[in-house]
Amino acid sequence: MIRMYGFWRSAASFRVRVALNLKGLAFEEEMIDIDAGVQHTPDYLALNPAAAVPSIRIDDGPPLTQSLAILEYLEETHPTPPLLPADARGRSRVRALSLIWAADHHPLITPRIRRYLADEMGQDEAARTAWIRHWFREGLAVGEARLAGDAATGLFCHGDTLTFADLCLVSQAAGARGFKVDFSDLPTVSRIVENCLALDEFARAHPLRQPGAPAQH
Amino acid sequence: MIRMYGFWRSAASFRVRVALNLKGLAFEEEMIDIDAGVQHTPDYLALNPAAAVPSIRIDDGPPLTQSLAILEYLEETHPTPPLLPADARGRSRVRALSLIWAADHHPLITPRIRRYLADEMGQDEAARTAWIRHWFREGLAVGEARLAGDAATGLFCHGDTLTFADLCLVSQAAGARGFKVDFSDLPTVSRIVENCLALDEFARAHPLRQPGAPAQH
Repeated sequence: MIRMYGFWRSAASFRVRVALNLKGLAFEEEMIDIDAGVQHTPDYLALNPAAAVPSIRIDDGPPLTQSLAILEYLEETHPTPPLLPADARGRSRVRALSLIWAADHHPLITPRIRRYLADEMGQDEAARTAWIRHWFREGLAVGEARLAGDAATGLFCHGDTLTFADLCLVSQAAGARGFKVDFSDLPTVSRIVENCLALDEFARAHPLRQPGAPAQH
Repeated sequence: MIRMYGFWRSAASFRVRVALNLKGLAFEEEMIDIDAGVQHTPDYLALNPAAAVPSIRIDDGPPLTQSLAILEYLEETHPTPPLLPADARGRSRVRALSLIWAADHHPLITPRIRRYLADEMGQDEAARTAWIRHWFREGLAVGEARLAGDAATGLFCHGDTLTFADLCLVSQAAGARGFKVDFSDLPTVSRIVENCLALDEFARAHPLRQPGAPAQH
């Protein structure tokens, strides 16, 4: 029994949802309304003191947090199909790519950052949106520089098999599109994102397909 | 033959240096002067298009980047002494703790962010320093909330054996001290940091012991 606590817009929730789908693991998801501040309620803080989504409970174990740590746990406990390559250098490449998006860029655009920029630095909505767009764009551009012309890149970020890196890239790209960031000039990134989004496991996990998402337009 | 490209002040370089010391791996370190912008030179970008330190080359392999991906690689290729627990849930806890500091907080205070705050948002040095202190403090406070009262916490973040989480915590704590962030009111974090810094493998790796660091005062 897998119970996930996520949010429709959350890129980190999207990543974990795709991994669960790819590994064929059934789960129930409770939506934690980040916009309404539900992550700061005592009940949720008891699950995750960092007030972030997703958290996940498997059977009666303690909550697991941090999307990349959850992906590693799923990989270790449900290794088929694998989402990491078989060789150590390949795994390091996949983890490094994943961290470009999940560590270096995604944390920059989360609600706590936007709140600080507004409340402590007096930045208006236009300035905050410019910030968000800048870092989404830079994360995808760094990804392009890493992926393009690298023989290890294939149909997906690492050869022709899905890995953590694709989950992290696509979740970041979906967020970028939500903020109308154009990255059509990044051919490798754009191609991999389309290859992934064509798969049912990604499509079903997409933020805009989750409860609470705005109607698609 | 291990060649590391780091920087004295870099928390991510500190983490990797400690892991190399703990695993008894000899390495040479070339300092990439982040303050002088050396990470943006073509030679360095060829090593790491993300313009970040550390990167590491082992024998004649391609560069490895992203400190957590480097730690995982070192763990897989040099498993003794282990820096991850033996059980999957324990590993997930250690990785989640590590990501609190290495992903959720450390990226917020890097030079590229400070430049954006100055150049695009007109934030003066006092405001930038307040930003840095705020996120250092929050990362350590979230860590305290996760560690305190958790039976899995011991002499170190996970029981009485060093793990990735300690490397990430201590590197973040050293950065916080560099910016005069007081966290003496966080007893679990403070205790673990002191336990680690008492060890030679941490002491030798400390930012203030590296070439280029200011004289200690």
